[in-house]
Amino acid sequence: MPSSLPATATERLAIARVGRLATVTAAGRPHVVPVCFASVDGRIYTAVDDKPKTTRALARLDNVAATGRASLLVDHYEEDWSRLWWVRVDGPALVLRHGPEREEALDGLVAKYDQYRDARPSGAVIRLTPETWRSWPAIPSGA
Amino acid sequence: MPSSLPATATERLAIARVGRLATVTAAGRPHVVPVCFASVDGRIYTAVDDKPKTTRALARLDNVAATGRASLLVDHYEEDWSRLWWVRVDGPALVLRHGPEREEALDGLVAKYDQYRDARPSGAVIRLTPETWRSWPAIPSGA
Repeated sequence: MPSSLPATATERLAIARVGRLATVTAAGRPHVVPVCFASVDGRIYTAVDDKPKTTRALARLDNVAATGRASLLVDHYEEDWSRLWWVRVDGPALVLRHGPEREEALDGLVAKYDQYRDARPSGAVIRLTPETWRSWPAIPSGA
Repeated sequence: MPSSLPATATERLAIARVGRLATVTAAGRPHVVPVCFASVDGRIYTAVDDKPKTTRALARLDNVAATGRASLLVDHYEEDWSRLWWVRVDGPALVLRHGPEREEALDGLVAKYDQYRDARPSGAVIRLTPETWRSWPAIPSGA
């Protein structure tokens, strides 16, 4: 995580069960999908798992390969709007198709999600290296 | 809505209380924020409301003005992954700073969200015209 990321934001990222991964297509258009993800050694990983995918579902991989960037948003909604919050991390991203880092990422995903224990993802992994972050409402430094 | 958008997806868009709006910066980087939104006459509108914003919070307006595109994602997460779903609409987008269409959009937002009744948004409105849509799992045509 960026050194400036407050503990509250780090915790919100660690606890969140779902995030939204935004990427940009080679043609410069926005793309966003919900993802399960895990933080491992300060990086964020999400895997292509074995759920059936539509033909477009792997656009996220093409986009990361084409642009080398991704953003992950974690947020909380409830009807009491005084309790809304979100945290977003932005940074360079990479597709990992094999190798030890991919295996460690999958270990992190399996440890976080019971659902992956009997269905370890077999596809590619996206690594997002947090470079900058934003949150709302502003989290005090050190909070 | 695009004529091909199934009723199930339209309903999910109409009911959802929060969506995630993805845009692209002038420099080609991804950007994503949670938004409240309303569908009016087949278009999707989200407003800059009166909650305090950080200096970057209006990046969405700059991005739409620069690129003319946006994507809105609505999704459902629960631990039973057989029940996950998402719907995404993509299309041209525009910033409305005044005028009758902006007022009608605000009427739609106020009608959907009680929270806006005593705090009608005073800022700009983003209009997203759905051009294509994707959903997961695939919704049967006509469903």
